[in-house]
Amino acid sequence: MRTIHLALLGLGTVGTGVARILREQARHLESQSGARFAIRWVVVRDPSKPRGIELEDGILTTEVDRAISDPEVDIVVELIGGIDPARDLIARSLRAGKHVVTANKAVLAKHGRELFGVANASGRVIGFEAAVAGGIPIVAAVAQGLAANRISSLAGILNGTSNYILTAMHQQGIGYDEALAEAQRLGFAEADPTLDVDGNDALQKLAILSRLAFQSRVPLEAIRRQGIDTLADVDLHFASELGYVIKLLAVAREVEGKLALRVSPTLVARNHPLGQVHNEYNAIKVTGHAIGDTIYLGKGAGMMPTASSVVADLLDVAIGRAQETFRSLKLWDESPPGPPVSDDGSMPNRFYLRYSIRDEPGTLARIAGILGGHGISIASVIQHETSEDDIGSAVPLIIMTHIAREGAVRTALRETDALDIVRAPTVCLHVAD
Amino acid sequence: MRTIHLALLGLGTVGTGVARILREQARHLESQSGARFAIRWVVVRDPSKPRGIELEDGILTTEVDRAISDPEVDIVVELIGGIDPARDLIARSLRAGKHVVTANKAVLAKHGRELFGVANASGRVIGFEAAVAGGIPIVAAVAQGLAANRISSLAGILNGTSNYILTAMHQQGIGYDEALAEAQRLGFAEADPTLDVDGNDALQKLAILSRLAFQSRVPLEAIRRQGIDTLADVDLHFASELGYVIKLLAVAREVEGKLALRVSPTLVARNHPLGQVHNEYNAIKVTGHAIGDTIYLGKGAGMMPTASSVVADLLDVAIGRAQETFRSLKLWDESPPGPPVSDDGSMPNRFYLRYSIRDEPGTLARIAGILGGHGISIASVIQHETSEDDIGSAVPLIIMTHIAREGAVRTALRETDALDIVRAPTVCLHVAD
Repeated sequence: MRTIHLALLGLGTVGTGVARILREQARHLESQSGARFAIRWVVVRDPSKPRGIELEDGILTTEVDRAISDPEVDIVVELIGGIDPARDLIARSLRAGKHVVTANKAVLAKHGRELFGVANASGRVIGFEAAVAGGIPIVAAVAQGLAANRISSLAGILNGTSNYILTAMHQQGIGYDEALAEAQRLGFAEADPTLDVDGNDALQKLAILSRLAFQSRVPLEAIRRQGIDTLADVDLHFASELGYVIKLLAVAREVEGKLALRVSPTLVARNHPLGQVHNEYNAIKVTGHAIGDTIYLGKGAGMMPTASSVVADLLDVAIGRAQETFRSLKLWDESPPGPPVSDDGSMPNRFYLRYSIRDEPGTLARIAGILGGHGISIASVIQHETSEDDIGSAVPLIIMTHIAREGAVRTALRETDALDIVRAPTVCLHVAD
Repeated sequence: MRTIHLALLGLGTVGTGVARILREQARHLESQSGARFAIRWVVVRDPSKPRGIELEDGILTTEVDRAISDPEVDIVVELIGGIDPARDLIARSLRAGKHVVTANKAVLAKHGRELFGVANASGRVIGFEAAVAGGIPIVAAVAQGLAANRISSLAGILNGTSNYILTAMHQQGIGYDEALAEAQRLGFAEADPTLDVDGNDALQKLAILSRLAFQSRVPLEAIRRQGIDTLADVDLHFASELGYVIKLLAVAREVEGKLALRVSPTLVARNHPLGQVHNEYNAIKVTGHAIGDTIYLGKGAGMMPTASSVVADLLDVAIGRAQETFRSLKLWDESPPGPPVSDDGSMPNRFYLRYSIRDEPGTLARIAGILGGHGISIASVIQHETSEDDIGSAVPLIIMTHIAREGAVRTALRETDALDIVRAPTVCLHVAD
């Protein structure tokens, strides 16, 4: 039986999970791949730090150069995360003739084209199933299982932290700060949750998935982004009242020959499959011209789910399947054949609008008139009765639109928000189909 | 660019869909695989029958021998279905050096070991993504995406016809016969729906999936089977009252080192992910030791979803990935390493029991006493008030148990059903976790 030698860069949560699966499932992995995996090096910054796993003597090292240039090493497993030095280490590993398996969405979303170019030039592969929705084999599903399809849309809950927080807010009726604190206490949010709650993490994953699904070049800056950190608690209450939940949705869809992408808090009907994805779970809906709607659900992060995807990639390389895939798919090609990326402005959508208005006769008529003037028709309205005390203060007016062009809605909002009866900038959220 | 020549056996719904994808997505498929697909032969019984697609002159034939022995043909696509002559044609195609792609669950569930043996001996592959849950790439997910996992359980809605009927019964409140007639009218059930509604179709798919997921030998007769054709409408009403829906669930799970399998109408909580899979959709929940719960949802059948999976397999063969997978996975090995199959008797489960009782003092106590004597504890009870008119007639008593061993429940039922107060055999259904 062949032995495949690995260098693990990083021994954090996922690295520990990978080492654990490789040890505990050794026989199972041998029967799956016909090969034996041996960890040759584990590169860490601080070898004295206590670890959640015992390693054989002599494999823990701080010398990354030695690990990635070791002629015995077949696969470098990059689990450091972030752009630098991961970008350089991946490129150098490939040039040194190693295959690379990585869970690093940031570096692939930003420098995927460069790194896949190095891989192609070196005749090596980059496995990245773990980089998107750790516990869902979505990269393989899109690149292989749905390969016969022209994919028309992707919509996903791709950030487990945001989804945990939103679930807690909806189900427990607590505010954002309290829900974030709970997520941090339970390990679903980091001490600095910025990249999760501001939508950047989901955006990176969307960029990678869209590249695969649509074969388009997707510059990160072409994706419109809004996080859940800007969300007001009151909008969750009104969403509930309307039969919806708010989810941080990452959406890419081809409309009229162009690809529009966004990450934003979105109203999802409570009985929509994505409306029922709770806590730290991720889910992705992919629609193909032949297969129709398909949905994939699983844990988006965490030690073992992500490690499971890393090891699936190791098996793919061991079997030789990854090499065949890589050669044929021309991932991150210089000139991909997919549709060009456009901004979301012309995209048809339904919208949730929350006005803060002065409650006086004719207010609804004036706002509805302006919306109508821009071709935006109203599907439903909530305006609660106000008490004597409210007179003179701002009260909320909720309008759900029928399908409208985003650009028209933005223009209409500029007009309505200039009215003297509108007391604060109107909140505008997408509504999923 | 290479050209890969195909022989299609059968040009029914799926075959027509395959031919359509190959034609309409030719460029897309070339960019996915680096190869061009050409249909060399389409074998049909009656070439004069009108078809939903125009084929090039000279490729429609009745001569199956000529097609599968043509040295130009690379892949035989078997879309005839059933055991004979499919079994023989697949074996002969493999021996003639062709790869085979098939959507035929019946022949693989029954003769998989034999046919995979022929494939191995011939150095050829059998692609069968389309054989299980047409529009869900579940074979690849289990065999590749989850390969790092020890899978502990599978639970699936694998028959779209049954699910359509059950959805109609629940949502429209109609009876079985009416729902079946509606499904037939809309093309979701065949004129003879037996194999769908009696659970055999789901059983075959479960056998194939379980073989992949657990690497066990799964004889069809080891799977307990009950269809929806035996279901009484009243049990759907009581299930609804309890917050459940009834689904035809195919379940395989490893408990205490043994693999238990069944297909049966099962109560699924309304807010359980599988409880929300409606109409003709299929879904499969797979639990792995590392990845946790994952769920895959899509259309289980129909022209284009199934054709999409057939073409995905064609791409896999063209790319060479199928060959690598096949060599490494040793599918349908002579002595698979997985757990032995046991019957379901010792499996822990929750149960729904519907007694038909004579409504008289002490009835509930006598039944509860017998259940308790077998260690079966009661989670909830429904017994509605009866009117004067009901006195003397049989009334329903519904008992939901906590987790109990199936064997104990069966024994207890034999005892309670012998009581004079029990007027008809008690209905016993599984309840999903």
